[in-house]
Order: sequence, then C-alpha cells, then structure tokens
Amino acid sequence: MSKVMNRSRAERLLQEAGVDVVVGSTYQNVFYLSGYEGFGQRLTPTTQVYAIARADDLGSPVLIAPISDLDMQAQFPAELARIHPYGRFYLEKSEGASLTEELTRYERVGIPCEPGGSAQEALLDELGRLPASSRIGLDETAVAPAVRAAVQARFGERIRDGAELLSRIRMVKTDEEVARLEQAAHVIEESYLAAIAAAVEGISEAEMARVFDHRTIELGSTPHFTVIAFGERGALPNAIPSAERRLRRGDVIRFDIGCRTRVYSSDIARTVAFGEPSEKVRRYYDAILAGEDRMLEAMRPGVAAKELFHAGVRGTQEAGIPHYRRHHVGHGVGLDTYDPPVLNAVAETPLEAGMVFEVETPYYELGFAGLQVEDTVVVTDGGYRMLTRTPRELRVVG
Amino acid sequence: MSKVMNRSRAERLLQEAGVDVVVGSTYQNVFYLSGYEGFGQRLTPTTQVYAIARADDLGSPVLIAPISDLDMQAQFPAELARIHPYGRFYLEKSEGASLTEELTRYERVGIPCEPGGSAQEALLDELGRLPASSRIGLDETAVAPAVRAAVQARFGERIRDGAELLSRIRMVKTDEEVARLEQAAHVIEESYLAAIAAAVEGISEAEMARVFDHRTIELGSTPHFTVIAFGERGALPNAIPSAERRLRRGDVIRFDIGCRTRVYSSDIARTVAFGEPSEKVRRYYDAILAGEDRMLEAMRPGVAAKELFHAGVRGTQEAGIPHYRRHHVGHGVGLDTYDPPVLNAVAETPLEAGMVFEVETPYYELGFAGLQVEDTVVVTDGGYRMLTRTPRELRVVG
Repeated sequence: MSKVMNRSRAERLLQEAGVDVVVGSTYQNVFYLSGYEGFGQRLTPTTQVYAIARADDLGSPVLIAPISDLDMQAQFPAELARIHPYGRFYLEKSEGASLTEELTRYERVGIPCEPGGSAQEALLDELGRLPASSRIGLDETAVAPAVRAAVQARFGERIRDGAELLSRIRMVKTDEEVARLEQAAHVIEESYLAAIAAAVEGISEAEMARVFDHRTIELGSTPHFTVIAFGERGALPNAIPSAERRLRRGDVIRFDIGCRTRVYSSDIARTVAFGEPSEKVRRYYDAILAGEDRMLEAMRPGVAAKELFHAGVRGTQEAGIPHYRRHHVGHGVGLDTYDPPVLNAVAETPLEAGMVFEVETPYYELGFAGLQVEDTVVVTDGGYRMLTRTPRELRVVG
Repeated sequence: MSKVMNRSRAERLLQEAGVDVVVGSTYQNVFYLSGYEGFGQRLTPTTQVYAIARADDLGSPVLIAPISDLDMQAQFPAELARIHPYGRFYLEKSEGASLTEELTRYERVGIPCEPGGSAQEALLDELGRLPASSRIGLDETAVAPAVRAAVQARFGERIRDGAELLSRIRMVKTDEEVARLEQAAHVIEESYLAAIAAAVEGISEAEMARVFDHRTIELGSTPHFTVIAFGERGALPNAIPSAERRLRRGDVIRFDIGCRTRVYSSDIARTVAFGEPSEKVRRYYDAILAGEDRMLEAMRPGVAAKELFHAGVRGTQEAGIPHYRRHHVGHGVGLDTYDPPVLNAVAETPLEAGMVFEVETPYYELGFAGLQVEDTVVVTDGGYRMLTRTPRELRVVG
C-alpha cells in the first residue's frame, strides 16, 4: 500500500473518470500508487516498471518489475498484494547461513530467479486477470511505445490514457507528502545557508556550488539542480555555475536550487547581495518580493490558479517594475519538480487545501542581473502555511 | 554540428535503413545529433526537445526546444543550422549595457521571447518543411504519445521508429566519445580511492558513500549511482548505502559505482577486503577476476558478443565457482549507462573497434557477500585497451 497516496481523492477521481484500474509507469506514479522505490528505472529511464491499482482496492497494488530490481523491496518494503517479476537474475545462497532480516526479506521476494518473460508479457498477463468489463487508465508517459501498442491491440477500448488523471490525483497532498516536501525545502535551505557562509571575494560560482551540493549530500538528500549565478550571469535563467566567474564586491547572487528528499522535490530561490547593493537592485527586489506577497495574500481554497498569476504579476508591476512580464509565477511541487497546476494566466484550477506550490516572481535583465524569490507553501483551509523558513528579504553579506 | 557523432557510421546506417531524416527526442539522442545540452529535460523528463538531422547533411541539425531553455545554447554553444523555439519566456535588457560574450550569444538566440506555439506545432512545422518523399526515423522514446500520434496522423507511412537505429549508430564510439568515457572512468576511480582511504572500523556505508560522492562532485562530475555495501549486504545487487551498517574487520566491501562526466557515463566495480579476507573470498574473487580476464582475451573485432558471455561465464566456473550463473557479463556504455549491445547468451552483434564496454562478472551470495569486478574497455583493431587503471586484484586495507 502506498505510503503517500491521497486515497479518498483517488477513489473519487477514478470514479468520476470512469476508470476501474489505474496503471502507473513513471518512477513517480509507481511510487505513488504502490510505495515501491525501484533502482533500475532511475539508472535507465526506459526500464519498464508498472504499479497496477484497482479503484475498489487501492491498498493492494500489484507491482511488475525486473527481477534484478527486487532487492529494493527488501531494503524499502512496500505493502504490495503481489510482485510479478520478469527477466532473469541469479543469486546464490550459502548453505545453512543465518540471514539478517533484510536479507530474509530479499530471499522471500527474490527467489526463484528465472521468472523469464518480458515486461510486456507480464503487463498483458496482469491486465488479463482483471474483470473483463474493467476500464483501465494506463499512465502513458513511460510505457515503452511497443508495450502500449500491444496493450491497446489486446484491450482496445478498455484502455485510456492515465497520466493526466494521476497528475490530478497527486495535486492535493497528504500530510505525509507535505511533511516530505517540508523536509526537502528545509534541506535545500540548509545548503543555501552553507553556500552563503562561503561567500568570499574571489570564490567561483562552481566552488560555491560544490559547497552547496556537499551540504545537500551530507543531509542525506540528492542534489537535483543548482543554479548559482553571480552578477550579470544571474540573467541566465538556467545558469550553470561557472569555474571562471568569481565573486566581486557589488555582485548580486541568484540561487535557484532544488534537491530530492525521500523521493520528493524542492525548488526555491533566494537573492543575496555581496556588499551593499545598488538602489536599482533594492528597488527591483522589493518589487518582486511584494509580488510574491500579493500572491500569498490571495492564496486560499476556491481561488482559481490564474488569480494568483494576476496577483503576482500586477503586484510586481505596481510595486516597482512596471514592465514586469512573466509566463508563470509558480507551480505545484511534489514527486515532480513541476506538478500541476502551473500558476499561469489561463489556469482555471481552483486551489484546494493540501495543494503545495512553489510561488515565484523571478526577474531577468540582460546587462543587469537576475533577481528571484521562490517559496514553498501549502494551501490551508484558512489561507496558506509557508514551508520554507529562511528570510525572504534581500540578504546582504560580505 | 554534433561534437561526438560517428558521422560516417550514421550516414551508412541511415542509408541501409532507408531513413532520410532522423529525429532525436531523448536528452542523449538530442545531444548526440546536435551537441545541444539542454536544462529543462533533465529537470522534467517529459519536456519535449527534438534534434532533426538530415542524412545528407548531418552537420546542420535543426533544434526544437522550449524558449526557456535557450540560455543553454549561449552557455554551451552547439553548431546548429537553426533553432525553432516554442512556448513563452520573458527577458528584459538594460538600455545601453555592454554584454559579456556569453550574454551576447544569449541575446542572439533568446530574443524575441514569445514564439508561442507548442512542441507539437514546432515538430509538425519542421517535418513539413522536409522534402515530401523523405522517410523519417522518429526516436520514439521520449516523444509525448500525443505528439507521436499527431506526427503519424500527418506523415503516415513516412514515419518509422528511430530509437533502435540511433542506438546502433551510437554503438561505435568516436575518439571524442572514448576520451569522455575514459575521463568518466578516471573520475569514478578517483572517488573510489577517496572512499577506501576513509575505510576505518565503525564508518557506516552511508558515511563512506558521502566521501565518495563529495569527491565525484569535487572533480566536476555528477554522482549517478553509488552502491557501497559491507559484508553480507554486498549480496544485495542494488544495495543503497545504509546509515546503520558499520564497517567491521573481516568485511568485504563491494563497490558498484558510476557518474556522469561531460554527459557520458561510467559504471565500474571493485572489491576490497577490510582486514585479511577468508580463503573463500580469495578463491571466489580470483575466479571472477579470471572470468573477466577470459573475456578480455576473447575481445577483438569480429567476435560475436555472445562469445564474450560464454568466455566470462565458463572462465569463472572453471577458475573456482563451478555453479556460477549470470544473465549478462557486461554491456556497452556511452551516453547511457546501458548502451547496446548487452553481453548475454544470445547477442549476435559482432564487436567492432571503437565499441566501449563495461565487462563484469559479479557474484552475489546470500549469507556470504557480494564480489564484483567491472572495467571499462574499448575494442581496438588488435584487441582492446583498458580505460580503467586502478588495480583489479582483490585489495586488502585496514
């Protein structure tokens, strides 16, 4: 059974969509439906893994995975109705050896080692065991095209795409998910604090990024993206830390940073001035922070996502950057760094308590700098709760 | 133009397959065809990026990418015939500011910022500009299913799957690729040396893994997978380093480790005894090393991949593990950790000079340990050249 699933929401949305069985194929959807954390798919994304969950029994998913992967179930046990392994993998056992608990679990799930067959055969077999009338939502994202074609050929009109439906289910987070997202946000903030503690004249972006990534790893998380840019390079939205660009007094440092913590993502931004910032930096930064504040003030259940967009853009314009333009001012965050909905001009999705967002009002100006603030917030019945906790104001160091 | 492509091989295989235009969709295939290193697709793998290369003009690919990604082309310029951006992204420019070279490049590729449209529209448009008779190999791996359906609806029989063809082109590496793979192997070996230098009684697997990952990052590379397992945990093929399992005298440490260096992968293995190993450890390790040696002796152009498989398995059996079984004894390595061909019992692919392999004869025994040696080698006209350089013998430390 999934550790993180919003089960009542899943039941309701599956019913509304007329889907009796949902099949996850991405790492994220397999984890969401089953709690299984695999290995091979992270290494080689084309590795086929599926979690099959019946709408009337979401607590008992069936997992299809390569047999070489099954020690992951021993290391991080998920509650599954059954595992259907495929492929070949060999493991011997010492005569009469006593095994640790973990290895005993492995022995139970990992032997015999020659189930044979392919992912496609396993999936067709498992779908064939379902009631003949059941309608199947197949997460089309990571199913190999040939497997998808075979499933459609055999089950025809009973198959529909499931990715969008799973995204909608995942939009509203459970308490466990909010806790993980909060932890991911705190880890990345700790790394940010370690990085700015290393801000001395002459340090390169790449050196600061290493301090940053080291801290993320020390905290047991996985670096995901590390945009640390000094001065004029801050205007590159995806600035890769440079070994050449060294910190100078008067530089603004833009951080746009994220990690993975217990499968969940963080994605925050901060702006730091190294030495006294210019009047323009202060004025523009205050404007984007005011834009974020306007969004936060507008945040509560029932408000359409696009209202936040307008609040953020207008707020930034009115507070000091009249020419401010932006394609979105934030997005959901969860198992993916970009979970729906995106906060853009056309997003009608009404906010619900339990949605978690990254809200941001970045500003990029060639020949000047990049300024950005981005925070993680969960929508609550009364408004919102901030999951990030470092100060959002322009920080001056050095 | 691609920095790494095996152009003569690509021309020949495209012609043999009757494909006039090839379209890459994965990060790897886009990089291979165009040299473009994107950002968004690494963060969110469903991001649509395509490189379109004509068989008669492989040096002038067309790139389709989200406009928010285009600063990557300023940071890491690829030689492209044209960029076809889609989506929206806003960037301002300071009046009269003088720009660095990098930002000048960005200004050239990144403005105007509202091309609008979608990835699907951009791809249909670009394919529509091709000669009407051209047959198109579309890398089906990472094309969104809806985009693929739209392409098939419009171009019908002119479209065929391209992933397998691109894999075959990529099987034989250029000198530039071999150099990058050698660098990736050396980085991961440096990290391994740092990790075993930290082998003291009581250190946990997780602590040793942090030393290891820090070194990889220090060397400017990205940790990809880090299996470091002590004693009985070595029998878990995908052992995730544990914070609880601490090093004890008499433990065998199994390393199965890889990183990404300049887009290319490494994947090697080493076994280290902490204190004097048992007679069984020595005997079994010597057997798997002998198995690897038999494979290396058999390695030369023209030999079928499956011959290496039999050499490795029989070699290990005859040298001391009579019950040795294995589903493969290695695989190609390149932009993917598992590039074809896999060295298994049925692989007919003849070896060619320039193929780069990971060769390995791992042995996992529950209640005993895991023993593994895995090396990176390039096939040469005369046989092979080893790209790894740390000693392959069982190492004793502590």
